[in-house]
Amino acid sequence: MGDQKRFMNIHVITIGSEILVGHTTNTNLSFIGETLADHGFSVLREVCIPDTREAIRTAVEHECRAADVVITLGGLGPTRDDMTRQVVCETLGLDSEVRPEIEEEISRYLRTRGVDVDARKVRVQAVVPEGATVFANKNGTAPGLWCPVNDTVIIMLPGPPRELEPMFVGDVVPRLEALGCPDFAQRMIQVCGIPESVVAERVETLLGAKTTLDIAYCARPGMVDVRLSGRSGDDAALGAAVERIREHFGEAALRADEDGVRGAVANLLTRRGWSVATAESCTGGGIGEHLTEQAGASEYYAGGVICYSNILKRKLLGVKAETLAECGAVSAETAGEMLDGLLQRTGADAGIAVTGIAGPGGGTPDKPVGLVFIATGVRGERSVERHVFPGTRQNVRERTIFTGLNTLRLQLIRMRSKT
Amino acid sequence: MGDQKRFMNIHVITIGSEILVGHTTNTNLSFIGETLADHGFSVLREVCIPDTREAIRTAVEHECRAADVVITLGGLGPTRDDMTRQVVCETLGLDSEVRPEIEEEISRYLRTRGVDVDARKVRVQAVVPEGATVFANKNGTAPGLWCPVNDTVIIMLPGPPRELEPMFVGDVVPRLEALGCPDFAQRMIQVCGIPESVVAERVETLLGAKTTLDIAYCARPGMVDVRLSGRSGDDAALGAAVERIREHFGEAALRADEDGVRGAVANLLTRRGWSVATAESCTGGGIGEHLTEQAGASEYYAGGVICYSNILKRKLLGVKAETLAECGAVSAETAGEMLDGLLQRTGADAGIAVTGIAGPGGGTPDKPVGLVFIATGVRGERSVERHVFPGTRQNVRERTIFTGLNTLRLQLIRMRSKT
Repeated sequence: MGDQKRFMNIHVITIGSEILVGHTTNTNLSFIGETLADHGFSVLREVCIPDTREAIRTAVEHECRAADVVITLGGLGPTRDDMTRQVVCETLGLDSEVRPEIEEEISRYLRTRGVDVDARKVRVQAVVPEGATVFANKNGTAPGLWCPVNDTVIIMLPGPPRELEPMFVGDVVPRLEALGCPDFAQRMIQVCGIPESVVAERVETLLGAKTTLDIAYCARPGMVDVRLSGRSGDDAALGAAVERIREHFGEAALRADEDGVRGAVANLLTRRGWSVATAESCTGGGIGEHLTEQAGASEYYAGGVICYSNILKRKLLGVKAETLAECGAVSAETAGEMLDGLLQRTGADAGIAVTGIAGPGGGTPDKPVGLVFIATGVRGERSVERHVFPGTRQNVRERTIFTGLNTLRLQLIRMRSKT
Repeated sequence: MGDQKRFMNIHVITIGSEILVGHTTNTNLSFIGETLADHGFSVLREVCIPDTREAIRTAVEHECRAADVVITLGGLGPTRDDMTRQVVCETLGLDSEVRPEIEEEISRYLRTRGVDVDARKVRVQAVVPEGATVFANKNGTAPGLWCPVNDTVIIMLPGPPRELEPMFVGDVVPRLEALGCPDFAQRMIQVCGIPESVVAERVETLLGAKTTLDIAYCARPGMVDVRLSGRSGDDAALGAAVERIREHFGEAALRADEDGVRGAVANLLTRRGWSVATAESCTGGGIGEHLTEQAGASEYYAGGVICYSNILKRKLLGVKAETLAECGAVSAETAGEMLDGLLQRTGADAGIAVTGIAGPGGGTPDKPVGLVFIATGVRGERSVERHVFPGTRQNVRERTIFTGLNTLRLQLIRMRSKT
């Protein structure tokens, strides 16, 4: 590449049969895409191929023709299906050399972990293209490699996320920033509880047909991501557009600096020093699991009860036998009593109680699969909502988790505006 | 394609900028890869591209040249970044036609959900390549499309997983089975509680250097997947190899016809009509969530308590204040009292109680991040184990969920063999 910074076409080649047979999900691509987007760079194309010589050769040839930067993921280890280094060298006509300092580093890494050092396996990982820059691997053996080849840079990185991620952030991103200029800017807004088609229509009306911004939508359980992007100089236009959209959707729009609905609920509660508890039937603990994914949840989440069986609805929450018999476990009455029992027994300031039919079985004409009652309460206030969520068991459960949290979020916002 | 069944090169094109910028992880590829592998088919290559006309055109041209079957994912909706149908038709020179029955179906779908019907947007989704087979979308609007073009079949499917998945299983797989013959066979064994390198060494010794089977490993939380594969005629060799491995690993190996550790626990409990309850601190409901992912969990799972805060460990489970003060919330004593309180209050036959430091903060020299106590009990028997799990917060939580269930599984197996 020349001295002048310029826009870069970045392509990614994921090497790993385990992804194509569905044993592993390609989270590396999400990580790289998101990290690059944060710096204004975009991945233009990704190819996923099996660990075979022929597939690697074809992909490397093809992507190197079209891209300024090609990032390969995986196939750098010591086993016989790890052949990325060798096939890249063959394909691009690069000579290779043994770097003794890599051998030393790997041997040291293995010894400090009490692993036997197999000299042959160590040597394989120390054979690198001549002139390559080597990135030390803090969490594994195979180093990353940065190799300029004519007008292209090929970057080879290890596949395990805990090896790849620090190397990508620490070594790759700064070098890409030195090499090329960012080619876009983006902003995202998340809108809750409104269908994608309605969100899209309103956003397009708001921004007008003449907008030069790209608009993309992604439907998630109970929420739509609206992503606006433009060239890297468009920050002012992006900011104004985001402001207009946020104003239009009001409390249905989440703030960008919060971590989704969970983050919004966390902020609303911690600001007042309040705690929330959960009583879950059809979600089986999923609301609690979601709330505690991020560290620091103990600031506002107390815990709660998973009352999957009717017996535990009675024993742990005091739901009345008559209520269960007359109204059923999936009813507004049961949800309400679950919430009351929860708040009484835990002493929490706020609560979410959910009961529903996640399916696929168990539906009736009166109470179809997807029927969910969500009770939320904050201090003295109570509400019970009835929903029918479409889709699979997983969909119904995800929507229930999301909607439970969003309902509490709205209740907390409205309380604030009243007082 | 001719009348004769033959091996098929299957390529996938994922269309969606949201994946390349890291907002969404490509779980569709995992789903399709795994579903096809279960039927002996493999995805040979996947390409992920942004929602632009040029990228779609280039990818469709290129993949259709090399593959017998091309599956496109995404870009079938009504918004303006949905352009798969149109660009595929243009690229492959296909005429298109409006199918009124699709318009009717989409309008009906929207009306039953109380959504306004926008005739223009409905129409867009009803324009399909001439002669295409249409797959109804039970969980959304855009139908799937199956279009034979010369020697290739191009299959266009919607991107949202809940729309894609039932369509893929119900409509696509049977048609692929009618079209081509499977090109491989595979068997999987899951080994619990033994490191990947040890499992690999033992498996390779067991099968010998001369085996013609491919062996691949995938390390999961607390468990290693061993995947053996061969040509589609190798079933006998595969079966014998699996048997040998299973015998060697004994109770550490899960049965293939069970749904992982969860399935094994479920079978061991339901066989005796027993129930299990959970008391979770650091996993925040994750064990309950995992147990209830599959329908039918109410047969053996009662529910339990999420005692994230110390107050709830006391209020909901009766853990003594002195125990918390003297031994700490993360201690064998607290885990044991959590279990006792749980079994007393729920009346369940079996129980799992976990308390630990998931991190990243909260560790001390005595009690490092990753320290977890797991108490399990079945009827009169109790055990408390101490573990230190490596990795991130998510790793520690996943290992805790898995190990809790596996510990209970082994306890149930050993009880059975004693009686």
